[in-house]
Amino acid sequence: MNRSTHDTEPSAQDLPTGRPQLSQASAALTYEVTALDERGRSSAIHIPAERPLTVYVDKRELVTLMTLGGAPELLTLGYLRNQRLVRSIEDIVSVQVDWSVDAVAVVTKSGIADVEERTAKKVVTTGCGQGSVFGGLMDEVDQITLPLDARLTQSTVYRIVETIRSQQSVYKQAGSVHGCALFSNTGELLWFVEDVGRHNAVDAIAGLMWLEGMAGADKVFYTTGRLTSEMVIKGAQMGIPFLLSRSGTTEMGHRVAEKVGMSLLARCSGRHFLLLAGKERLVFEPEVLDALESHLRRPAARAGDEVQCP
Amino acid sequence: MNRSTHDTEPSAQDLPTGRPQLSQASAALTYEVTALDERGRSSAIHIPAERPLTVYVDKRELVTLMTLGGAPELLTLGYLRNQRLVRSIEDIVSVQVDWSVDAVAVVTKSGIADVEERTAKKVVTTGCGQGSVFGGLMDEVDQITLPLDARLTQSTVYRIVETIRSQQSVYKQAGSVHGCALFSNTGELLWFVEDVGRHNAVDAIAGLMWLEGMAGADKVFYTTGRLTSEMVIKGAQMGIPFLLSRSGTTEMGHRVAEKVGMSLLARCSGRHFLLLAGKERLVFEPEVLDALESHLRRPAARAGDEVQCP
Repeated sequence: MNRSTHDTEPSAQDLPTGRPQLSQASAALTYEVTALDERGRSSAIHIPAERPLTVYVDKRELVTLMTLGGAPELLTLGYLRNQRLVRSIEDIVSVQVDWSVDAVAVVTKSGIADVEERTAKKVVTTGCGQGSVFGGLMDEVDQITLPLDARLTQSTVYRIVETIRSQQSVYKQAGSVHGCALFSNTGELLWFVEDVGRHNAVDAIAGLMWLEGMAGADKVFYTTGRLTSEMVIKGAQMGIPFLLSRSGTTEMGHRVAEKVGMSLLARCSGRHFLLLAGKERLVFEPEVLDALESHLRRPAARAGDEVQCP
Repeated sequence: MNRSTHDTEPSAQDLPTGRPQLSQASAALTYEVTALDERGRSSAIHIPAERPLTVYVDKRELVTLMTLGGAPELLTLGYLRNQRLVRSIEDIVSVQVDWSVDAVAVVTKSGIADVEERTAKKVVTTGCGQGSVFGGLMDEVDQITLPLDARLTQSTVYRIVETIRSQQSVYKQAGSVHGCALFSNTGELLWFVEDVGRHNAVDAIAGLMWLEGMAGADKVFYTTGRLTSEMVIKGAQMGIPFLLSRSGTTEMGHRVAEKVGMSLLARCSGRHFLLLAGKERLVFEPEVLDALESHLRRPAARAGDEVQCP
């Protein structure tokens, strides 16, 4: 930890109440390396960054997260939120990232309660590395019921899929990252974030929602990654009734979605998807699909037409 | 934890020295669920299992791993090994999985030393959930140098890629899992394992190598997942000089590979690959590639031939 960070840090008492003060630390998201292909030909390719970010809460080391580094402040907030280490955003005074030492200093008003007890019981999750979800997670899940009256139309699903497809991203340049996005239930993109682990990407979204005081009931959560139990649980904790992915699901992801009443759409790609849970919330629009398919369909060859190879 | 497991457990003193006693717990690896497609048509699809496995060491709860459940005993062994919680396989008396309570009971000869201290400093990794890698990981990495004289031929790379392609797998039936495989450096498949997180699959391989006393120097490690720092570090800890993946790498995965002298082959698919680190160990065989390409190439159309559409 860079000492100067501590020396210049205001004490909790000096700061106004309300929103925490966040740094805006930026770091390179991709690197160029030299690769040899199967012919031994050398070329430069881009790979995504992966860097450690050690979280210090009130000068005490808590955890080291491995991250792309695109949204470290919101990742830190979301980590503290999703691990239930801090109850209210008002309890956080500041979140200051210093990439020169790969660290983030969090100052709270009253500290983390029972940190030893809370970190003693660990769940190492399926999700790419978000890892240790501290005890009592499933007890919390049992208390969640997502709003039954929320609806999502098929055309909104397609709008979301198309928005993601056309999104500028580290993935397009360098591959090997997962993306998560928060949408309104009318398909408006609110925020898109990528990270080397999808757990980090979803934590950053949770951090944003926490910071901005956003409700989940009228939102849609999209991830490029698989819908494992961890992703479904985090979506449920954010109160979001719709979870979409271009990938598939696992048995426990499916079971938790059914338990909390989440609508789960897997394998979203082009006009295809598989609705796996919370089926009553999706508004099917056959006419939208018909129009899309007739647009995609090439005119059939008529007798006498020249045959053209593609 | 099921009490009866404890009641019938022999004490450490009663057991012979040498290999630990392992249960052979089996569980369903896939489940059938009903999905609606974009036309609202119902169909049954398969999804992989994802189940909690709570690890008790000498009756004390250590961690809960989320796993497919295909190789729970080896996963447990590899977890203890890769976290450096037990130094020698001889220290482990038994590993007994009981799926009726989603738990595994590990009995050791002398317990885990300094568990509080070792678990206090956490690294939450990029890898799908293996998560908490306890302190001092990078210090350990600094001490690893992989054998410089190891070689891998291009034809062996292709043999490995083809073996993986034709492998029966949960992935082919249900998707949403990662596979890892251990090969000899002549391309013989030694073991293939899948899990919902690639961290678990690599831990299971580490467990097998630990149990069987296998050296890493003459092995090749293949993963379907990305080559993040965690995967490279674990490969290095197993002493394996070759790491292959059908996916890409990250900057830190690349950097650690260069530091420990690991040969990293990313984007292995068909005859293509990208050699990213440890380049001197790969034996290029242009004649093998030529033969493969001429086999794949369709005969060119000659003038006067009928044009046939595919």
